[in-house]
Amino acid sequence: MLKIAIGQMDVTPGRPDLNTDKMLSMIANASNHQADIIIFPEMAIPGYLLGDTWEQQAYLRDCEAFGRKIIAAAKDICVIFGNVAVDWGKHGDDGRVRKHNACFIAQDSRLVDIRIKTLQPNYREFDDTRHFFSLSSLSLERREPVENLIKPVKLSIKGKDYTLGCIICEDGWSDDYSVDPIAVLTANGPLDVIINISCSPFTLGKNNKRNRVFSRQAREANTPLVYVNNTGLQNNGKTVYTFDGFSTVYNSTGQIVTCCRPFAETLDYIELVTEAGGQNLPPVNVPDDSDIASLYQAVSYGVKNFLQSIGMNKVVIGVSGGIDSAVSAALYASILPPENILLLNMPSRFNSQTTKDLASQLAKNLGCLYAVMPIEQSVEHTVAQIGGTPIINLANGTEHQLNVSSFVLENIQARDRSSRLLAGASAAFGGGFTCNANKSELTVGYSTLYGDQAGFLAALADLWKHQVYQLAHYLNATIYGREVIPQAAIDLVPSAELSFEQSVDEGKGDPIIYSYHDYLFRAFTEYWNRVTPADILDWYSQGTDVLEQKLGCQTGLIQQLFSGPRPFIDDLERWWRHYTGMAVAKRIQAPPVLAVSRRAYGFDHREAQNNVYFTQEYLRIKQLLLSQ
Amino acid sequence: MLKIAIGQMDVTPGRPDLNTDKMLSMIANASNHQADIIIFPEMAIPGYLLGDTWEQQAYLRDCEAFGRKIIAAAKDICVIFGNVAVDWGKHGDDGRVRKHNACFIAQDSRLVDIRIKTLQPNYREFDDTRHFFSLSSLSLERREPVENLIKPVKLSIKGKDYTLGCIICEDGWSDDYSVDPIAVLTANGPLDVIINISCSPFTLGKNNKRNRVFSRQAREANTPLVYVNNTGLQNNGKTVYTFDGFSTVYNSTGQIVTCCRPFAETLDYIELVTEAGGQNLPPVNVPDDSDIASLYQAVSYGVKNFLQSIGMNKVVIGVSGGIDSAVSAALYASILPPENILLLNMPSRFNSQTTKDLASQLAKNLGCLYAVMPIEQSVEHTVAQIGGTPIINLANGTEHQLNVSSFVLENIQARDRSSRLLAGASAAFGGGFTCNANKSELTVGYSTLYGDQAGFLAALADLWKHQVYQLAHYLNATIYGREVIPQAAIDLVPSAELSFEQSVDEGKGDPIIYSYHDYLFRAFTEYWNRVTPADILDWYSQGTDVLEQKLGCQTGLIQQLFSGPRPFIDDLERWWRHYTGMAVAKRIQAPPVLAVSRRAYGFDHREAQNNVYFTQEYLRIKQLLLSQ
Repeated sequence: MLKIAIGQMDVTPGRPDLNTDKMLSMIANASNHQADIIIFPEMAIPGYLLGDTWEQQAYLRDCEAFGRKIIAAAKDICVIFGNVAVDWGKHGDDGRVRKHNACFIAQDSRLVDIRIKTLQPNYREFDDTRHFFSLSSLSLERREPVENLIKPVKLSIKGKDYTLGCIICEDGWSDDYSVDPIAVLTANGPLDVIINISCSPFTLGKNNKRNRVFSRQAREANTPLVYVNNTGLQNNGKTVYTFDGFSTVYNSTGQIVTCCRPFAETLDYIELVTEAGGQNLPPVNVPDDSDIASLYQAVSYGVKNFLQSIGMNKVVIGVSGGIDSAVSAALYASILPPENILLLNMPSRFNSQTTKDLASQLAKNLGCLYAVMPIEQSVEHTVAQIGGTPIINLANGTEHQLNVSSFVLENIQARDRSSRLLAGASAAFGGGFTCNANKSELTVGYSTLYGDQAGFLAALADLWKHQVYQLAHYLNATIYGREVIPQAAIDLVPSAELSFEQSVDEGKGDPIIYSYHDYLFRAFTEYWNRVTPADILDWYSQGTDVLEQKLGCQTGLIQQLFSGPRPFIDDLERWWRHYTGMAVAKRIQAPPVLAVSRRAYGFDHREAQNNVYFTQEYLRIKQLLLSQ
Repeated sequence: MLKIAIGQMDVTPGRPDLNTDKMLSMIANASNHQADIIIFPEMAIPGYLLGDTWEQQAYLRDCEAFGRKIIAAAKDICVIFGNVAVDWGKHGDDGRVRKHNACFIAQDSRLVDIRIKTLQPNYREFDDTRHFFSLSSLSLERREPVENLIKPVKLSIKGKDYTLGCIICEDGWSDDYSVDPIAVLTANGPLDVIINISCSPFTLGKNNKRNRVFSRQAREANTPLVYVNNTGLQNNGKTVYTFDGFSTVYNSTGQIVTCCRPFAETLDYIELVTEAGGQNLPPVNVPDDSDIASLYQAVSYGVKNFLQSIGMNKVVIGVSGGIDSAVSAALYASILPPENILLLNMPSRFNSQTTKDLASQLAKNLGCLYAVMPIEQSVEHTVAQIGGTPIINLANGTEHQLNVSSFVLENIQARDRSSRLLAGASAAFGGGFTCNANKSELTVGYSTLYGDQAGFLAALADLWKHQVYQLAHYLNATIYGREVIPQAAIDLVPSAELSFEQSVDEGKGDPIIYSYHDYLFRAFTEYWNRVTPADILDWYSQGTDVLEQKLGCQTGLIQQLFSGPRPFIDDLERWWRHYTGMAVAKRIQAPPVLAVSRRAYGFDHREAQNNVYFTQEYLRIKQLLLSQ
């Protein structure tokens, strides 16, 4: 029987000192509990998402030194942990010193073995190939099949020999690679345990998939599998990722026998009878992670940890009376004390009494600080100053004036709110101000740069508008147990209220039809094979029901919204132009986005400010549809 | 004798239609000139920096279709060109359809052969491994040495057989890889010509290095080498890259025998006697590309092309009277007609008459449009509104007010200028407004978010302050041939003028000491092995002369600036905290940066908003120094 401690720790990226202290304390704890092995996650010492800190040799030496401390502490217990392994005499393909993403196995205060990550993801937010030299690269360099390099770890514990398969994260997700590390390991003889140390960010629905994949692996290998993942928050600048831990143990039949509490630092123990393939442990139920409760948990955990990590404990939130800012306020008020939140309503002449009342009602419901700072006087001054100042042509001495159009006026208002009032008030308040944008807005740039797109964090910007509504209901029903977000704010037509053309009282509002565009935009951005107008028109020409099914939106909606191909195509081209045009320029300067989906904006949505383009195939189908 | 046409074309990323049209016209031209071969750059059809457009299958099919047009046009001429090659039946490591960065060889309107890029860079701005499947990956997949897969191209031209080595960009930069494609090719028999098609961005000093490397390759292979690179502009969102072309032909002794005009679309011809290794052509001189003329050429080309690519032909530039905005204005005025440039001076009570006069003098010298819009009234209103509006605590009904400190006031001014006036005025003017920040400021976040850090492009943000001064001199002396940037603006102490503590008339100004910090910051960011405080203190403790030599700054400067270890360390820690702390948050929301150095901010300076950290080794040396 092996007593294994699962060190599901909060990893602080860039702080090997703090991570090591935490590991030392968990090792001591596990030793006291007579555990035989303690397992820590991938890159437990350095953190994983560090940007180009990986290029600092001083940082690498530091992580090595802390690694030696952990090895020294492996006295009465075997310690398995993730760290960077540096091969100082060799270089990577970039000419810098060679670094491996590695799994260290220590016992009797000695390093027993090191295993190097074989498969390195270079998709989504992962950037392993930029920094680390994989076992696959080693195989390429040595002109030797990678199979020859994948070896199990031999350990002797309490006089008994064990054979472990130690792999790192992506090694367990080998479906699309030409090598399957677990298959190679098991082909060379039976293993006692497979250990997968990971640093795997939360994605809505991912745990369900992982449980299917890892359960099959354990079953096919006829070996128990211990998956250890960290908690905490890491970011790559433009995008912030939560880590849910959710460390899981599968027995040799693929049943889940242990599952650590998600989004919580824990030190759990299992007593694994390896001879019985872990079937001594009873199966447990795993919560489904694709529902709104998971979404709230991730977003709330992310915001809380981000605030802590940047040392911010006060925020100012612009509240318009609309749904996005109301959800944002309710979310932050579930994290910070109400007196640390200042809700600011900043009306102009275009804001209705309806929304002003809703903003004030929201603030009352949440018990936050509240103030009203109208923008009318400042906007008038700006318009007068820009439109009234003589512009002198110094080449010929002539003068003229600039013309402030109604469109220019709309953006002046948005910037006046954010860059003048929210930024100034939050600095005076001793905190930051939030960006309340949702993913639909960010997709098509339906926001003003340095205006409502600004803020220190865009916590809702990976949620489609329909998910913002779901979150509103969940906050009221489950988190608060009362109507903190006024139902009228939920029922209101979404509107920016930047002109009389956007009057909520007349039921006018945003040009985005969320019931359809949410799903269209999702196909543009989140589908693994990115959907473009050519695909949309192809499906559309097969039938609106086909398109609705492909997009996952409501049946019958498209015929209801569009009278025929012409308006359908106009709409499609309008938003494609926005998405690949001006919205790119805006996203380049957007705040960090808190990720929950398979693709959040930021680092994983690689941008290029190129021209809007329609393919030849698109133009052909369009021509065909319009000529019918 | 082979007559080779070098198609040094402007590639428009994301516009295969335009690129194909251009190629067809160049092919026709070359056919008329009886050329035997025409060579186009890497990824000539799709463009190279496309962000995640590579994930759009419709785009891939489009590029294939345009590729077929080029192949069909290869009637009386052999056409060698770069395009994406899609293997629809296979997938990459990300599970998406397999894409190769490929070289196509077409003749008699047929595809003769395809060569796949062997080495794929994943450092600097390059992201090949995210999108493309290399020949190295194929070798790994097939468990076959990569040498077996690297083959020459056999061609018959005018009845004579030729053996070509067709490689792609990085294949010619193999020093840090375990395989050298040219060596493999030549080991299997002599080649008639080596052809390297590239899409290689301009970097100050890179052409000098390339000439050394490629000249050696030609000499060692005893084979002429034809390097074909594109011109134009490509970007990956946060960073904008210029492509200088500079296509070059080396004969078999390594001499440069042809060199296309940099930053210009050209169709040049060479008549290569392959039997003589190209030694029939006389050697030519190549201009040095690491001086200020190259820098100006790249920046000016970049700005001009960026404006064209986003369809902008009018700009507003905030001019303070200081050096950065003056250089920015002179730069734009060398590109756009003066009546398309509005220079805006936005004084507050803290701006001296000196700088106001300098701003006006600059505008007169350039003959641009000019206006003065003071921010005093707006700033006063903002301070009164933020400080005077009652903040109601809705939990207990109490009221209080916010306090606007002098630091908060500084940033209110900066945002008032940019987000209120420049953004509003540029929209009314029908253009954008520039960000005039330099690299030193961006390094330590010495700028205000939504304030002077804002703009549609940061054209000078890859230039250290001393390079900004060099550019000022060059603009006056060479581009304008007269003092457009007033000498007094060059001589002025750099200052933000946001408080009376920053009075230029009293010689007070920025806390950054550019003569030292420019070089310190360059070591932090541009050195291949990133320098950290541990390295700095190590060198410092070896002697200030050692440190000065490592940094490349003026000798004797450090002793002159710092009286001993304590002030030196305080200064070092101050800027390291800024660089890895608040400046990261600011850079995440910074405008696109025009790259000229080995590492510009943006995509190639991978950020992570983590905590400021000092390594154990640093703390040890610090302790030692302070205890002496």
